[in-house]
Amino acid sequence: MQSKLRLVDFPNSGEKMSKPTRIGLAGLAVMGQNLALNIADKGFPISVYNRTTSKVDETVERAKQEGNLPVYGFHDPASFVQSIQKPRVIIMLVKAGAPVDQTIKALSVYMEKGDCIIDGGNEWYENTERREKQVASLGLLYLGMGVSGGEEGARRGPSLMPGGSFEAYRYIEDILLKVAAQVPDSGPCVTYIGKGGSGNFVKMVHNGIEYGDMQLIAEAYDVLKSVGKLSNDELHQVFSEWNKGELLSFLIEITADIFGIKDDKGNGYLVDKVLDKTGMKGTGKWTVQQAVELSTAAPTIASSLDSRFLSGLKEERVQAAIAFKSIGVSDILCNPAVDKQKLIDDVRQALYASKICSYAQGMNLIRAKSIEKGWGLKLGELAKIWKGGCIIRAVFLDRIKKAYDRNPDLTNLLVDPEFAKEITDRQSAWRRVVTLAINSGVSTPGMSSSLAYFDTYRRERLPANLVQAQRDYFGAHTYERTDMPGSFHTEWFKIARQSKL
Amino acid sequence: MQSKLRLVDFPNSGEKMSKPTRIGLAGLAVMGQNLALNIADKGFPISVYNRTTSKVDETVERAKQEGNLPVYGFHDPASFVQSIQKPRVIIMLVKAGAPVDQTIKALSVYMEKGDCIIDGGNEWYENTERREKQVASLGLLYLGMGVSGGEEGARRGPSLMPGGSFEAYRYIEDILLKVAAQVPDSGPCVTYIGKGGSGNFVKMVHNGIEYGDMQLIAEAYDVLKSVGKLSNDELHQVFSEWNKGELLSFLIEITADIFGIKDDKGNGYLVDKVLDKTGMKGTGKWTVQQAVELSTAAPTIASSLDSRFLSGLKEERVQAAIAFKSIGVSDILCNPAVDKQKLIDDVRQALYASKICSYAQGMNLIRAKSIEKGWGLKLGELAKIWKGGCIIRAVFLDRIKKAYDRNPDLTNLLVDPEFAKEITDRQSAWRRVVTLAINSGVSTPGMSSSLAYFDTYRRERLPANLVQAQRDYFGAHTYERTDMPGSFHTEWFKIARQSKL
Repeated sequence: MQSKLRLVDFPNSGEKMSKPTRIGLAGLAVMGQNLALNIADKGFPISVYNRTTSKVDETVERAKQEGNLPVYGFHDPASFVQSIQKPRVIIMLVKAGAPVDQTIKALSVYMEKGDCIIDGGNEWYENTERREKQVASLGLLYLGMGVSGGEEGARRGPSLMPGGSFEAYRYIEDILLKVAAQVPDSGPCVTYIGKGGSGNFVKMVHNGIEYGDMQLIAEAYDVLKSVGKLSNDELHQVFSEWNKGELLSFLIEITADIFGIKDDKGNGYLVDKVLDKTGMKGTGKWTVQQAVELSTAAPTIASSLDSRFLSGLKEERVQAAIAFKSIGVSDILCNPAVDKQKLIDDVRQALYASKICSYAQGMNLIRAKSIEKGWGLKLGELAKIWKGGCIIRAVFLDRIKKAYDRNPDLTNLLVDPEFAKEITDRQSAWRRVVTLAINSGVSTPGMSSSLAYFDTYRRERLPANLVQAQRDYFGAHTYERTDMPGSFHTEWFKIARQSKL
Repeated sequence: MQSKLRLVDFPNSGEKMSKPTRIGLAGLAVMGQNLALNIADKGFPISVYNRTTSKVDETVERAKQEGNLPVYGFHDPASFVQSIQKPRVIIMLVKAGAPVDQTIKALSVYMEKGDCIIDGGNEWYENTERREKQVASLGLLYLGMGVSGGEEGARRGPSLMPGGSFEAYRYIEDILLKVAAQVPDSGPCVTYIGKGGSGNFVKMVHNGIEYGDMQLIAEAYDVLKSVGKLSNDELHQVFSEWNKGELLSFLIEITADIFGIKDDKGNGYLVDKVLDKTGMKGTGKWTVQQAVELSTAAPTIASSLDSRFLSGLKEERVQAAIAFKSIGVSDILCNPAVDKQKLIDDVRQALYASKICSYAQGMNLIRAKSIEKGWGLKLGELAKIWKGGCIIRAVFLDRIKKAYDRNPDLTNLLVDPEFAKEITDRQSAWRRVVTLAINSGVSTPGMSSSLAYFDTYRRERLPANLVQAQRDYFGAHTYERTDMPGSFHTEWFKIARQSKL
């Protein structure tokens, strides 16, 4: 019965499969379907499987329609696995967590020593490390591979971040190099990231950076709209224009697109009808928790996450707005006369400067983890493979790549000579935007926390001496001195009491 | 041999202990010693034990010197446990983590059904819940009790946050009510917090709030010193003055003290010699990670933690300061002429308004956890027991207590009518301080993230519609609409492409 199904599922029905496929893919939601079609499109025959078998047929049908691509569907795990050439490689694109374990369990019973499983989902890196050990006991190899680019990227060329077994990576490198996005001058957006869960970790931080980018763009929008009174038409033009310069990126491009789209269910523009509640999945939260774990400040990313949390409290916010209006606090506190062109130019610079801070945080987070885990990650290479395919793709990443090429041990992007100059050139505009927003009552948590990050990092002497003195006062936590080595404790309370007598 | 030691250790040597003690305490670092002396001072005979036995003798000696307090020392766990009246209660004050497990193991073998163990350390709440279950299998009761107030508080009267077995709490309630700090009008700073690890959780958030308070005070100091050019003498006067008004609190008081203390190793004031590197223990990190876990924005607390992280990068900051100075960016960007009195008054108001935001975040974090765990915590009661004894003690907490008395279901402190008015009255000053700091290049991450929190929370319409539109554009995450129910998806890319043709 199963082998009959197998035959029926062949794209060229009636024809027997002459030789095994090169690779398999399990989990055929849109991302999985698209990646399978992409792989087939690059000339690699692929077997596909999904627990809900209608998805298998759907994928095979799409493969037929998109040019008779070599996609072979299977309704049962056994024949799926057996259809792949040895050593077998199977990419899973299922929901992170328990479904991954279930899929491994379902497939691994039919797999053999030397075969390889790849998790292409947004998985927590420690789960990948646990599974790598687990399947190693069966003689199987394992990769946790970040896949970025959304549905469109999966089909046309994503950014791929494979981490885990280098042997497994080498075996499918030829496929990945062709499947990944191709960027002129820098090539395919894939590289072997490192051991263990490093591929998942890097993808997680990529997503955290994506949160930051999206929040900063939203703040730029808010200031231009709420303070500058720009219309959607004007915003469309501004973002289209920005997408020709230093901000050229996928997210700026789609933002320009969004402002140009009319509401098909009413009057006006669709963006104005979208409810101001932002959803989220797990990776942004994990990024911020990891930043804390690694004692690495990532305030731009953290404030992006907080903004999503607060956006979700729509009903509370409506009530709060009413309560504050009733005591004279307007939504927008003032409507200063602004020079639109000047404001647009300032906001562009503020966005760019804030973006540098956000990427500096993300990169430092990856480095901190790399040091902790001994992964030896190359930050410049990561910037390179993010130049295409993924959601944060931008010309900006090329500048980051070059900064790490100049100095692989760069402690912070902010002090790279080029970035230091760029941020210095923009700091006046940046400060004008944030203070204008504050005076208007418009919150720019991403931009202002980026600016605070910059002003904190470049400061030789912080008021942290007071905090440490307080800690020594009430908890005898001791302190260091500026003028001599050692650890000191002062009986602050006793001295203060004596001087009061 | 052991029973001989036991006799020798009696404070009145040669005299045999006539009856068992009321309670025991294990772990005699300074906090443990002080809490034991406090308990004895309130008339409860106490047995004490420490693995390093010299600490036992030290404690007994101190008890003798501080008025022949009924403290009985033991050098071995068996006689220690056996010296306590049944059902036995033993408070542990040892380092969180493995030492707690080791102490439980060492003591529980001599304990009997119905006896109770209390962990008074800064323990992760889930560890307490695990141990509660573990000792329940031996018939023992368990409490995780937050103890705040530092060394001085432990001796004179701390704030106590016991959570876990209510039966165990009832058995020692008479002791805790006397040992805790006593506040006129509101009584002892202790209440039964709730089940499981709730006592540890509440103490953890208390510490997170403490981080926020300390950072906000440090920023006030920085603005007054770096922009207002106040001397330590003036700062001493300002903080002393502030401690007579709405900011009256332990932390403001010790800050005033600190500015008055001269360096005993050189010229000038000690605070200027303290290195600007702030240490930390685990609770601040846990608080921020829990905020993320619970999808609760806590940006003031998070930025306090980030400031500690960045303070630790002293060498990097020195290098960054040099790099930026070399391209014309001074540490302090400008020296605007400021009216000192006006600035002092503005900073006081900014500090107070920011503090409201910080406590609103902490309280909401506790509520979110209480709902998740079914703890039924009473926020007003927590504010009450923080009024004395602990590090964050302040008259301000009475206002919080009253806000929750007015409305136990208050969604956010910001919308309590009194706090809403207070914050509204102070918002102009608050915005002046933050914008002045930004223009001076002085970072105020705590104050500015508090202000962003306020401006975000009171905003009916955020730019989150754009973020959600972006998510739907590249990931088909769907969106809601402002004008009709339901979940929608738009083919943004296709529409945009068509309109470009």
